[in-house]
Amino acid sequence: MEVVRVLHMNGGVGESSYALNSLVQKKVLSMTKPITEAAITQLIMCSSSMAKTFCMAELGCSSGPNTLFVAMEFVKIVSQLCRKHGHDQLPEFQIHLNDLPGNDFNSIFKSLAHSFHAQLLQEMGAAGVGGSAPYCFLSGVPGSFYGRLFAAKSLHFVHSSYSLMWLSKVPERLEMNKENIYIASTSPASVINAYYEQFQRDFSTFLRCRSEEVVGGGKMVLTLLGRKSDSASSKECCYIWELLTLSLKEMVSQGLIEEEKLSSFNIPQYTPSLSEVKTEVEKEGSFSINSLEASEIRWAACGTSGFYAPEYSKKGDDGYNVAKCMRSVAEPLLVEQFGELVIDKLFENYRNILSDRMSKEDTKFINVTVSMTRKE
Amino acid sequence: MEVVRVLHMNGGVGESSYALNSLVQKKVLSMTKPITEAAITQLIMCSSSMAKTFCMAELGCSSGPNTLFVAMEFVKIVSQLCRKHGHDQLPEFQIHLNDLPGNDFNSIFKSLAHSFHAQLLQEMGAAGVGGSAPYCFLSGVPGSFYGRLFAAKSLHFVHSSYSLMWLSKVPERLEMNKENIYIASTSPASVINAYYEQFQRDFSTFLRCRSEEVVGGGKMVLTLLGRKSDSASSKECCYIWELLTLSLKEMVSQGLIEEEKLSSFNIPQYTPSLSEVKTEVEKEGSFSINSLEASEIRWAACGTSGFYAPEYSKKGDDGYNVAKCMRSVAEPLLVEQFGELVIDKLFENYRNILSDRMSKEDTKFINVTVSMTRKE
Repeated sequence: MEVVRVLHMNGGVGESSYALNSLVQKKVLSMTKPITEAAITQLIMCSSSMAKTFCMAELGCSSGPNTLFVAMEFVKIVSQLCRKHGHDQLPEFQIHLNDLPGNDFNSIFKSLAHSFHAQLLQEMGAAGVGGSAPYCFLSGVPGSFYGRLFAAKSLHFVHSSYSLMWLSKVPERLEMNKENIYIASTSPASVINAYYEQFQRDFSTFLRCRSEEVVGGGKMVLTLLGRKSDSASSKECCYIWELLTLSLKEMVSQGLIEEEKLSSFNIPQYTPSLSEVKTEVEKEGSFSINSLEASEIRWAACGTSGFYAPEYSKKGDDGYNVAKCMRSVAEPLLVEQFGELVIDKLFENYRNILSDRMSKEDTKFINVTVSMTRKE
Repeated sequence: MEVVRVLHMNGGVGESSYALNSLVQKKVLSMTKPITEAAITQLIMCSSSMAKTFCMAELGCSSGPNTLFVAMEFVKIVSQLCRKHGHDQLPEFQIHLNDLPGNDFNSIFKSLAHSFHAQLLQEMGAAGVGGSAPYCFLSGVPGSFYGRLFAAKSLHFVHSSYSLMWLSKVPERLEMNKENIYIASTSPASVINAYYEQFQRDFSTFLRCRSEEVVGGGKMVLTLLGRKSDSASSKECCYIWELLTLSLKEMVSQGLIEEEKLSSFNIPQYTPSLSEVKTEVEKEGSFSINSLEASEIRWAACGTSGFYAPEYSKKGDDGYNVAKCMRSVAEPLLVEQFGELVIDKLFENYRNILSDRMSKEDTKFINVTVSMTRKE
């Protein structure tokens, strides 16, 4: 599977779109906001001179209400600090929105970009930054963040949330993973190693590329799906995929999916521990870690009564909401392997399995957030 | 009509897409290539020091084979000159692709960006620039070029072809233009003035915005649809729209279009003379003109036997090709005013009118190309 081509969140604003089913990702952005704010504040306070243009990149921006969430914070905080320090003129802002080429950039450009500028003007007044909003230049940057995306020393702040657990490719040597689609409690050590080694290669490549693009003293805040446990097969990171596997197996037993298709399918993702993230950052050596912490958010946070579109959210049906969230994320990968026809049924099964388990267990996603500074 | 929202070339790669019907625009790019090359060469030769990142913007890039045509020239020429002058390391390139938010950026990102990098690698070898292609960072920048789009002093080279004749809005006070949809031989002086004044406002705004974004010594090459004549109602620039008016009138007489809809419709375009362009550049004052010239290209150049997709091009049927070209450009504007249902019939009529006239007359588009340098 060619991940760069296939992987992307569901576009548009329809029922299965990521835009309408990314509430849990939004909540994680709110949870990690203090870390982001601290990084941005430190960026400005430690700068010896004020840049004329501040440049940030949102990596894995997708398309929807989360796309410009941190960009808005960035512009507000920097502007407030500039005013506070008596700068007459606000700096200009360059906001790069990056995702893989299959991302729905048209949707961002047609509606989000417009509403961003309107909201900015409103927020700048409310935040006491004066009536005028600064120039904010938005651009869409298609491509994999496992390669260079921006000019050398051009970025002041890099942000990414719920993107970097995606690998550049499905690891090799996963034959032994049989009917699992991700690391599972039954996965042999060789499979876990194959996944971990791919993560190490990808994450160090990511750090090396960003080290060329971020200015000395620049900041980077990354949140990944991860785990607290040392064990990569821990339930806290694998369970969500194990339950999808159950749904796929049900389809196999009904003859709707070929067994061979299931055994050759593996999700290009890795959910690292805090220490695995720390090890790679220290090994690459260009960034120093300011903070590294885990947080958790309940699967049920995928729902909570129609935050974006009441008509699509069935209050109280947690399985429904989690299934929709996972569909908006994984549908393109699943369609590539199993075809479009099985998708509705697959997620109907998945929803039932999720509802059952969530009513009996306390199910959570673990987030790993690392805040770093580019060494001078 | 809200031009920023409505105006865009037809997206995708279907039969009516701009991508498949922009052969005449491609030929104009080839015709003006020596001017572009001279500007890029001069940019490098006159620089006191070599930039580490060269940044260019293609304004009104649309989506199709022309989108990255000049960007490719830019990267090749600059790289060749760097090698020639013994620079070990090639600079990095930042290519901004700008168009209005309705442009099909997804198509650019999904296929063109990929093929650009592949072609670049090939061309760099062929052009004797050594085997390795330099880093080229592509970004999509949505928005009107009648406002700021890029950070201050961030651009080395700006290019635009067949875009700047589009105005930011339909001029006011066009009530007297009745059933004409553009300046026509029957348009009163007040209508011509209204159009000209809108052009003056827009073009000077454009120059002021770019003057902030282009570095001292930076270059700008613009090609617009225009005219050689002093008269704005000259047939050389108005005839193409007058014939579309005939088709619209035919639809009115058949009861397919309301007369009121026709009389309230005017195309947001102005086709300036050389001296009108010169006047605005000198008035604004930030740029000095290196060259200013008119060229012409026959309407028949819209076709010439299926350059891109043989199956869609009917050899020898010039009216067919011109109608398709005009449809790929003007369809969104016409749909907004007259609805989707009339479009097929409208362009069928138009094609017949065009075929008839083109068989009897020597019909041409006039291009105005101006090459400028940002004063230091």
